[in-house]
Amino acid sequence: MPDTTAPTDPVALTQALIRCNSVTPAEGGALVLLEKLLSGAGFACTRVDRGGVANLFARWGDKGHQRSFGFNGHTDVVPPGDEGAWTHGPFSGDLEDGVIWGRGATDMKSGVAAFAAAAVDFVRETPPEGAIMLAITGDEEGDAVDGTAALLDWMAAQGEGMSVCIVGEPTCPDRMGEMIKIGRRGSMNAHFTVTGVQGHSAYPHRAKNPLPAMARLMDRLASHELDRGTAHFDASTLAVVTIDTGNPATNVIPASCRSAVNIRFNDTHTGASLTGWLRQEADRVAEEFGVSVDMQVKISGEAFLTPPGPLSDLVSKAVAAETGVTPELSTTGGTSDARFIKNHCPVVEFGLVGHFMHQVDERVPAGQVQELKAIYTRILRDYFA
Amino acid sequence: MPDTTAPTDPVALTQALIRCNSVTPAEGGALVLLEKLLSGAGFACTRVDRGGVANLFARWGDKGHQRSFGFNGHTDVVPPGDEGAWTHGPFSGDLEDGVIWGRGATDMKSGVAAFAAAAVDFVRETPPEGAIMLAITGDEEGDAVDGTAALLDWMAAQGEGMSVCIVGEPTCPDRMGEMIKIGRRGSMNAHFTVTGVQGHSAYPHRAKNPLPAMARLMDRLASHELDRGTAHFDASTLAVVTIDTGNPATNVIPASCRSAVNIRFNDTHTGASLTGWLRQEADRVAEEFGVSVDMQVKISGEAFLTPPGPLSDLVSKAVAAETGVTPELSTTGGTSDARFIKNHCPVVEFGLVGHFMHQVDERVPAGQVQELKAIYTRILRDYFA
Repeated sequence: MPDTTAPTDPVALTQALIRCNSVTPAEGGALVLLEKLLSGAGFACTRVDRGGVANLFARWGDKGHQRSFGFNGHTDVVPPGDEGAWTHGPFSGDLEDGVIWGRGATDMKSGVAAFAAAAVDFVRETPPEGAIMLAITGDEEGDAVDGTAALLDWMAAQGEGMSVCIVGEPTCPDRMGEMIKIGRRGSMNAHFTVTGVQGHSAYPHRAKNPLPAMARLMDRLASHELDRGTAHFDASTLAVVTIDTGNPATNVIPASCRSAVNIRFNDTHTGASLTGWLRQEADRVAEEFGVSVDMQVKISGEAFLTPPGPLSDLVSKAVAAETGVTPELSTTGGTSDARFIKNHCPVVEFGLVGHFMHQVDERVPAGQVQELKAIYTRILRDYFA
Repeated sequence: MPDTTAPTDPVALTQALIRCNSVTPAEGGALVLLEKLLSGAGFACTRVDRGGVANLFARWGDKGHQRSFGFNGHTDVVPPGDEGAWTHGPFSGDLEDGVIWGRGATDMKSGVAAFAAAAVDFVRETPPEGAIMLAITGDEEGDAVDGTAALLDWMAAQGEGMSVCIVGEPTCPDRMGEMIKIGRRGSMNAHFTVTGVQGHSAYPHRAKNPLPAMARLMDRLASHELDRGTAHFDASTLAVVTIDTGNPATNVIPASCRSAVNIRFNDTHTGASLTGWLRQEADRVAEEFGVSVDMQVKISGEAFLTPPGPLSDLVSKAVAAETGVTPELSTTGGTSDARFIKNHCPVVEFGLVGHFMHQVDERVPAGQVQELKAIYTRILRDYFA
């Protein structure tokens, strides 16, 4: 029989999770392993698989309790790339000189392991008046359609509500404890196709060249100041990410040209307001150059913010107590599944240092995983105090 | 024995030339056929083959004569494309309802046939006091390095000078006789590579996006008025022909981007002066955006002009007399081998209607080829009168 009074080791758990080959959308045994651990500790577990994606919902305590602490994370990982380039195998989970190696070491099997270990020990040692929930997905790195969003839908339908939620993504740029994310900028892509009339370079007046129109449009979009930032957000940014024509013949004026821009926007804007602006600028060059401009927009997520308050205070204090560092409340960075959770309850993100995410030789100091477990434990203790 | 007093039929000769598959750089029997015809008529023929390209030089009359009338043309053709799309085979040379079908029917086996037929009959019927030269190349549609340029070098080395020269390219836009070309705009290409620093779309301040710089540069180049035309030239034009990045990831700011522009310029400019301007604009955006801009320039030909004078008068009068149309003296259109000849002697271009050049179902009315032979014959008669 296992020693049920010994603390759960988040390092061994991280190693075990890394050894599950769970490149999106493969489950790889990672959720099975977590379910076994959590079930054994008294959590009611349900697999909520959707469209080839595996998700796990686990609850300790009563359903529908007014104090329900939620945790969200993912066990899927991005592909390892060239496996031969790794010092330790990407699915080895090797622990050497205090460092855990492998894909997911920082993003974010370590975060899931740290919270799971904290929760298992916490409910055993000081069973709280309330519920603790884990909503773990196998599709955060992919389309995310059947991942956290589907899991939250299922939870809502079941009456499984979280009062607050922490997302365990790595949030610290360089030093453990230095950053909590209380929101994220929105993200959207717009794809433009400018169509004119093909012709011979020697007779440009007989053609309608789409390229000068595209150049003007991209110049205008890129040089426009969207805003100067807000109290909690950096300035919104627009990046022209590609312009393509594919015309190999210098004596031919091409018929069309494509481009794409990515916008990261703060709460000054919405996906809809930006779409309106883009359409206006597209129409303007269409008019000026006598070309047509098609635009396809995909909004990945709206900007959102959990304003500084009880939840961020709770996390900040726990971080400061365990690390001695007072974390910055930030909204920087890309998108995360917090964009789905914010529709259900207050949500903040806190995890370890994000170095080596998505890179060859992804790795994490084992001590940082222990530290993260301690922080999550203190958060649970303070929340239920 | 052939009837050596019958007129040479330019239609049959055009058909025979079309049946030679002479897609650049293949000779295909076309120059062999011409050499046989011209030799039989007393022309001294020399094959001047260079680097896999066949060229033919033919002279009737004494070498070094002060009245040496030159003709330049080419027997190579562009590829037929989808042969199944042709009504008559591209190398059939079919004559049906007064129309000759096949690749080279207008560009320009018909022109070569019309002049060769005119010259052969002319020297037999009224042997001139002077020389008639044909400089026929098998590489006008390709790089043209080993074609007319090499042939002219060889002629110069041999002391084979032309007093004047006609290039038999199709010059009439719609109606036979309506246009003589007395010069051509210059042509050049510039290829740009803008290099910045790759990065994540969410953190554009950590990257240096080359695309806004490229967009600005292309917008400036395309919207700049180079000139408003001169007495004999249309306004110079610049066409942005391609912009390419090849970045499929909207979350990545690419490291570099390429583009190309084609400039057709009149005698207000030189390739060197335009290169200087392009470099200046490239340096300007490099400075503004903190990127590097590489530029590679290729000058295909400088602008040139044979000012209206004795040669254009001679051709104009012959055209008017045979067709009733007074031709316009033009410098429009792409480039031609006249750009090489203008370094040696006055040169004008005159040929038939250029419809269907480089297209599927290239074809020409047989009557137009007969008319062209009559015009060339009158030019020879008037020149040597």
